[in-house]
Amino acid sequence: MASLLRPATWGLFSWRGYCSRGTQGRLGAGFVEALKAVVGSPHVSTAAVVREQHGHDESMHRCQPPDAVVWPQDVEQVGRLAALCYGQGVPIIPFGTGTGLEGGVCAVQGGVCINLTHMDRILELNPEDFSVVVEPGVTRKALNTHLRDRGLWFPVAALCPPDPGADASLCGMAATGASGTNSVRYGTMRDNVLNLEVVLPSGQRLHTAGRGRRFRKSAAGYNLTGLFVGSEGTLGLITAATLRLHPVPEATVAATCAFPTVQAAVDSTVHILQAAVPVARIEFLDEVMMDACNRHSKLNCCVAPTLFLEFHGSKQALAEQVQRTEEIIRHNGGSHFSWAKEAEERSRLWAARHNAWYASLALRPGCKGYSTDVCVPISRLPEILVQTKEDLEAWRLTGTIVGHVGDGNFHCILLVDPEDPEELLRVQAFAEQLGRRALALHGTCTGEHGIGLGKRQLLLEEVGAVGMQTMRQLKATLDPRGLMNPGKVL
Amino acid sequence: MASLLRPATWGLFSWRGYCSRGTQGRLGAGFVEALKAVVGSPHVSTAAVVREQHGHDESMHRCQPPDAVVWPQDVEQVGRLAALCYGQGVPIIPFGTGTGLEGGVCAVQGGVCINLTHMDRILELNPEDFSVVVEPGVTRKALNTHLRDRGLWFPVAALCPPDPGADASLCGMAATGASGTNSVRYGTMRDNVLNLEVVLPSGQRLHTAGRGRRFRKSAAGYNLTGLFVGSEGTLGLITAATLRLHPVPEATVAATCAFPTVQAAVDSTVHILQAAVPVARIEFLDEVMMDACNRHSKLNCCVAPTLFLEFHGSKQALAEQVQRTEEIIRHNGGSHFSWAKEAEERSRLWAARHNAWYASLALRPGCKGYSTDVCVPISRLPEILVQTKEDLEAWRLTGTIVGHVGDGNFHCILLVDPEDPEELLRVQAFAEQLGRRALALHGTCTGEHGIGLGKRQLLLEEVGAVGMQTMRQLKATLDPRGLMNPGKVL
Repeated sequence: MASLLRPATWGLFSWRGYCSRGTQGRLGAGFVEALKAVVGSPHVSTAAVVREQHGHDESMHRCQPPDAVVWPQDVEQVGRLAALCYGQGVPIIPFGTGTGLEGGVCAVQGGVCINLTHMDRILELNPEDFSVVVEPGVTRKALNTHLRDRGLWFPVAALCPPDPGADASLCGMAATGASGTNSVRYGTMRDNVLNLEVVLPSGQRLHTAGRGRRFRKSAAGYNLTGLFVGSEGTLGLITAATLRLHPVPEATVAATCAFPTVQAAVDSTVHILQAAVPVARIEFLDEVMMDACNRHSKLNCCVAPTLFLEFHGSKQALAEQVQRTEEIIRHNGGSHFSWAKEAEERSRLWAARHNAWYASLALRPGCKGYSTDVCVPISRLPEILVQTKEDLEAWRLTGTIVGHVGDGNFHCILLVDPEDPEELLRVQAFAEQLGRRALALHGTCTGEHGIGLGKRQLLLEEVGAVGMQTMRQLKATLDPRGLMNPGKVL
Repeated sequence: MASLLRPATWGLFSWRGYCSRGTQGRLGAGFVEALKAVVGSPHVSTAAVVREQHGHDESMHRCQPPDAVVWPQDVEQVGRLAALCYGQGVPIIPFGTGTGLEGGVCAVQGGVCINLTHMDRILELNPEDFSVVVEPGVTRKALNTHLRDRGLWFPVAALCPPDPGADASLCGMAATGASGTNSVRYGTMRDNVLNLEVVLPSGQRLHTAGRGRRFRKSAAGYNLTGLFVGSEGTLGLITAATLRLHPVPEATVAATCAFPTVQAAVDSTVHILQAAVPVARIEFLDEVMMDACNRHSKLNCCVAPTLFLEFHGSKQALAEQVQRTEEIIRHNGGSHFSWAKEAEERSRLWAARHNAWYASLALRPGCKGYSTDVCVPISRLPEILVQTKEDLEAWRLTGTIVGHVGDGNFHCILLVDPEDPEELLRVQAFAEQLGRRALALHGTCTGEHGIGLGKRQLLLEEVGAVGMQTMRQLKATLDPRGLMNPGKVL
C-alpha cells in the first residue's frame, strides 16, 4: 500500500516533474492534449484567469489555482478524465458552483479541476415517488423552479450565509453535507439524498444504492450513499444525485419576536420542539445582528436577541401552531411578536434575516466576512453564545451571530480587513477557539459547511485518534494514491 | 494484506486446528480459559444448549451454534474479548436479543458469540437535547418505559412482523438498519442514530461521531455513524448508541378503511403524502390477510385491501388530518372508514394489524412463518403487489401481505411446513423471485430486515459489481481477517 502513496513516475507524466515545474507548464503539453482528446479542445483551459477563478470558493482561503480546468459533458467523460489523471498521478479537484465556505476547491497540490456545471440536466422526475435525479450542474433554485408546478420542492439549504442569493449545486451540497434553515423540519442533505452516481478515482462508476434505485429506505449492505454525502470530493466525483422531494406546503406563516436574553430565546425553542410544534424554520439573531439589520435595511426592529420562525401546513393547522408558539414565547418572556401570512408581508417581516450577511458586512465597509459553523446540543447553546460574545470582545473582533437554533447550529459572522494580516490571524484564532468550545460542549466544529482546509486539526480533536485512523483507512481504500481533492478533510 | 487473510497459526490457538476439530472442542481449553479470564467464569458457556440458543434468530435459517458464548459486563471487556478472538483468528458474532430475521447471528464458521445483553444501562438522558445513550442490552420497550414520564419516546420499529411482541435491542436495531411502522413520519434507524460506540475487531474503541458527541447534525468528515448503522455486526461490535428522541404526541387517532383494489389503496397513500398530511403510520393489509384476521380474532372487518392509519398531533390538528384523509380516501373509492381516539378503542380498531402475524400462522396450524421484506418506489407498489399475489398462486404457496405502504415496503408472510423440505425450497425460490421483481422496479431486496445470510446474491444484483467491490473493500479495511460475523452481508 505504502508504495502506492509514493509519487508515481510512469506514463505520460511524471509526478515529481509535475511538482518541480512552474505552475503554467506543470501539466505538460502531452497531458493537456490528452485532456482535450476526452472533452474536446473548447472544454479545456489552462488560462491563468480561468485557473484563478477555479482556485477559490467564497471563503477567505487564499486562491490556489489548479493547472487546468476541464468541463466534461457527460459521466462517461468524467470517468475517462478521472482514469487519465489518476493513472498519471495528477490531483483531481471536483468543482460545482464554487460557493463553498471552507476552501474545498483550492488546488493545494495543483492538478486538474473538473468543472461539472455543463452537466446540468434534470434526468428523471418521479412526482408520485417524491424523487428526482439531477446532474451536478443543477442548482437548488433551478430544481425548485422546475418543480414549481408539480406541488413539490426540495427544501434543504435555503437562506444560509454568506450570501442568501448563493445558489449552490445540489451535488455540491451533497458533497459538503450541507443543510440550512429548513433542516429542523426537513433534515439535511444526509437525510434527503437517496442515491448517488459517483465516478471513483479509477474512473469506475459507482451507484451508491445501486443503479436507478430510488426507494425511500433500505437495509441492503453498507450505506455507501451516507459515506459519500459529506466526503467533500475526497473519495470520488458525484455525477448525479437522486433526491427526496417534499410536498409544497399549502400555506406558510412567518413570525418574529424579541427576547430579554439568549437563554429565553433558546428555552422557547426547546419548548416549541418539546410541544411537537412542527416548526419549519427557527432562526436566532443576536442583538448586534439586529442592530446591524436595522441600520442596513432601515428597519425598526427591537435590538434584542430575536427569533425568526416559519410554519408550513394547512391554514387551520398554522393558526394553531402560531397560537401555541406565541403562548410558549410569551411564557418565556418574549415580546414584540409579529406574524405574516402573505408572501410579500413575510418577506418584509424576515427582511432582517434575509439581509443578515450584507448587514453584517456593512458594519465595517471594505471588510470581508468569515462565517464560523459550530453546532452543539441545543441545551448548551446559551452557554456557548454567551462565551462567544465575550470572546469577540476579548479578541477585539466585530461579529454578528445568526443561528439555526432548532439544530443547535450557529454562525458567527466575523468582519475582517483583508489588508490586515494581524486581524486575519485573530479571526482564525477566534474561530479555532470557538470550535474547541463547541467540542467541549459535546458539539461539532461544523454543522453544515464541512471541514475543507481549515478545520482538519479540529476534526482530529472532534473524532479522536481512532475515528481519524478509521477515516484515513477509508480514504486510503477508495483513493490509494491520495489524489482526490488532496489536502481536504484529513 | 493477503497474508492477513490466510489462516493464522500463532498464539494459543491454531485457526486450522480450529476448523478441523469437533464442534465441542474446537476452541481448546486454553482459549476458553482466556475468555474466562476476561469476563469471569460464570459469564462463559460452552454448553450445547446455550450454544444452540445462540445459533439462530427468529428466521428459518438453520441453527449454527457458536463454539462458546460470553457475556461481557462492560465495554472494556468487549474490547479485550475482541482483541483476544481476533488475535487468535476466532470468528466473533455479536448477539443482542436474537430477534433478527435474516440469520444474522448464525455462527457459520463457529467462533465466539458475544452476548451483549448484560450491558443494559441507560447511560445518559438529555431531555432538552432530545437524546439518550443506551447500552446494547436496552430494548426499545425498556427505553420507552424509562421515558414514559419525560414526554419523550423513541418511535422507530414498532409493530413489525414477525412477532408484534418482539422487543429488539436498540443497538441490534442499529446494526440491522431497522425501521417499522412509524418510519413514514419519524424515519428509520439511519435517521435516528446520532452516534455509536463501536469496538473494532482489533479491540480499539471507536466513537463514530466522536466521544460523547450528541449534536443533531454535522458535516465533520466521513459519516462513520452511517457506515456502521446497517452493517449487521460485520465491521465491529456496537457497545452503545446515542439516539434521537421525539416528543410524545399530545393525542393519537387511529383509522381504518377498505378499498376496492390495491391500486386505490396505494393511490390514496400517495395523495395523503402529497397533501402533506403528516401521517404517523400507514399500513396496508391485503384481503387474504384481512380474512385471516377476521377468522383469528373473531372480527368482522371488510375482506378487502385495507389501510390502517395513525395520526399524531394536537387534538385540533388531528381532527383536520382525519377529515382530509377521509376526503382523499373517499375520492379514491375507499369505504368503511372508522376512526378511534381512545387507547382502548384504537387497539380494537387496529386489532387486525396487531395480530397479523399470528392470524397468518393460524391459516395453516403447525406451519412456520417466513417474511419477505422488499421495498419499491411507492408508484410501483400496485404492480408488484399484483405480481406477488399471482406468484403465490403459481408457486402454490399460502401467504398474506402486510406493508409499510408509505415507504413502499411490504412483507409477504409465507406459511411453510417445517417438515416439508420441498415446500421450503419453493418458499425460498418465491422469495428470491420477489426480490428480483423489486430490483426490476428500482427497489431493494430489503427495506428493514437486512441481508444476513440469505440475500447476498440479491445484494450483488442490487448494488452491482462496483458497489459490491466497494463494500468488500470497506469490509477488508475494517476487518482484514474477515472474522467479524463472517458469512453475512457480503
